Amino acid sequence: MARFTARALANVALVKYFGKRDTELNLPAAGSLSIALEPLATTTTVEFDEALPADRVALDDAPAPSEFAARVSRFLDLVRDRAGTSLRARVKTANEFPTAAGLASSASGFAALAVAASGAAGLQLGDSELSALARRGSGSACRSIPGGVAVWEAGVDPDGHDSIARRIAAPDELDLRVVVGIADAGPKPLGSTTSMERVRRTSPYYRAWVESTASDLEVAAAAVADRDYARLGEVAERSALGMHAAALAARPGILFWNGTTVAALRCIRELRAAGHGVWFTCDAGPQPKALCRSADEPAVAAAFEQLAGIEQVIRCRIGGGATLIG
Amino acid sequence: MARFTARALANVALVKYFGKRDTELNLPAAGSLSIALEPLATTTTVEFDEALPADRVALDDAPAPSEFAARVSRFLDLVRDRAGTSLRARVKTANEFPTAAGLASSASGFAALAVAASGAAGLQLGDSELSALARRGSGSACRSIPGGVAVWEAGVDPDGHDSIARRIAAPDELDLRVVVGIADAGPKPLGSTTSMERVRRTSPYYRAWVESTASDLEVAAAAVADRDYARLGEVAERSALGMHAAALAARPGILFWNGTTVAALRCIRELRAAGHGVWFTCDAGPQPKALCRSADEPAVAAAFEQLAGIEQVIRCRIGGGATLIG
Repeated sequence: MARFTARALANVALVKYFGKRDTELNLPAAGSLSIALEPLATTTTVEFDEALPADRVALDDAPAPSEFAARVSRFLDLVRDRAGTSLRARVKTANEFPTAAGLASSASGFAALAVAASGAAGLQLGDSELSALARRGSGSACRSIPGGVAVWEAGVDPDGHDSIARRIAAPDELDLRVVVGIADAGPKPLGSTTSMERVRRTSPYYRAWVESTASDLEVAAAAVADRDYARLGEVAERSALGMHAAALAARPGILFWNGTTVAALRCIRELRAAGHGVWFTCDAGPQPKALCRSADEPAVAAAFEQLAGIEQVIRCRIGGGATLIG
Repeated sequence: MARFTARALANVALVKYFGKRDTELNLPAAGSLSIALEPLATTTTVEFDEALPADRVALDDAPAPSEFAARVSRFLDLVRDRAGTSLRARVKTANEFPTAAGLASSASGFAALAVAASGAAGLQLGDSELSALARRGSGSACRSIPGGVAVWEAGVDPDGHDSIARRIAAPDELDLRVVVGIADAGPKPLGSTTSMERVRRTSPYYRAWVESTASDLEVAAAAVADRDYARLGEVAERSALGMHAAALAARPGILFWNGTTVAALRCIRELRAAGHGVWFTCDAGPQPKALCRSADEPAVAAAFEQLAGIEQVIRCRIGGGATLIG
């Protein structure tokens, strides 16, 4: 079998995914909407080899940590099952992120892995199948398959075949940028699945969170269709705040933010009050992300650069889907 | 008529009051539980005088701002109606707070005013009547009438006569301290009633907030009876986080915190992880408050003193009810 290399981008959800209806299959309790972030890319090469006694996983040119390697192997098992092979693989994956940035790389990582591994195994999968496959590795990875502006439908089927992401707009169709501030480059204290499960089980706001996400998704998708940036930004900010609020109300409460995150949120609101088209979003960690129009990007980036506690500022534009590059 | 002087303490809710079932009568959507904070006191002197053409209100030895004076006059109208008089009053009120601290003084202020004004008007009111009267000035003021550990029942009557605070423990019955950090001494950007109403009307979490508060109150009252500090602290922290979370999910989201508040919450959780009996609470503003055992107070105060952004640290103990002092 040949060597296949794929590249995929991280994505940021404007309507957040936070809560599963099935933890085994990574089926979400509600739909979500994201944009792919160029240049936050992962490149992954996969080669199945009958000479290998076990999978060999390298991350950024070094043997991968065992927990990461085990997760990759479990994902490869899904591909092997489907391809009817038991061959072990050599996997080489590298994050092109400007830094070991405290940004989740699992979305770009499992999207790239899905494309490279299925190719290397000789599977001919369409985008929907690739999206469903990537989802098994990490929920949000399914949105990195189509890239651009993507909607991940919650679906209703227990087997999850209808829970896939599709592109609703191409990268150049929306005038949007994302400015990422690194407020803490360290590892997340709490994994996504762990925090989602605690919120689902203990937060009195979980049900309302899931319900409001469904309506936010409709509004956001319509705003994308209408190129209504103010509406989209407003929904994005409320979805992010609603997610963090639902987590804060868990027992015990989960606080993803640090002081810099809050300062960034206040900064973004001040910029908006001053007339800039900019809105706050934030994932399950402390890094603040500013969604803005391209004309507002310089002012937003400059404001982030000046915020105490921001270690690095990364400017992103909307990028494309996961692709084979070799 | 004679001159009456009363003193009352501010209080901090461990089970938060946030949301009204009647804005005119200040009837809460759910009950709450508080402790009175010594030395955060207001002293108020009231004297009705037939020579006065209008109420004259002095705050900290200067003529009070007109909005404050008008609020005092409207409150005095309630007392005049009840006493059957139309005399105007001279009111002198002073906060003994260690600083103009960005701490709400309306609870201590209206509790002291209720006691002094009703005395000056010749009314003989019992504690329940005083509590209901103080509530009309500011909801949480009703809890400063009994002081100690107080429970304010939501009540069910439209006229609010059953929505009063009663003491469930005396100041010396609980080994608790509150360490207040001043993270921003400026005025609140959003008034309590305004923010409560926005949350009630727009937050998808409001209903769940009110429902969880009712059960939190039961747990907290039982914890007080059992002197179960860990349970009480846990409920206090989740009630505070739940309130701030419900506000964050309003539209637009209300963020009372600043970066220092979040740093203080993280600091408190680290102290707790290190074995100290300390829990976070915070009202509708940025000032972090640490609820702790007396043995833990020195460590908590020292940690707050070292936090960047904390302008002042105030150590409080549980105080008594509103009293006539002259």
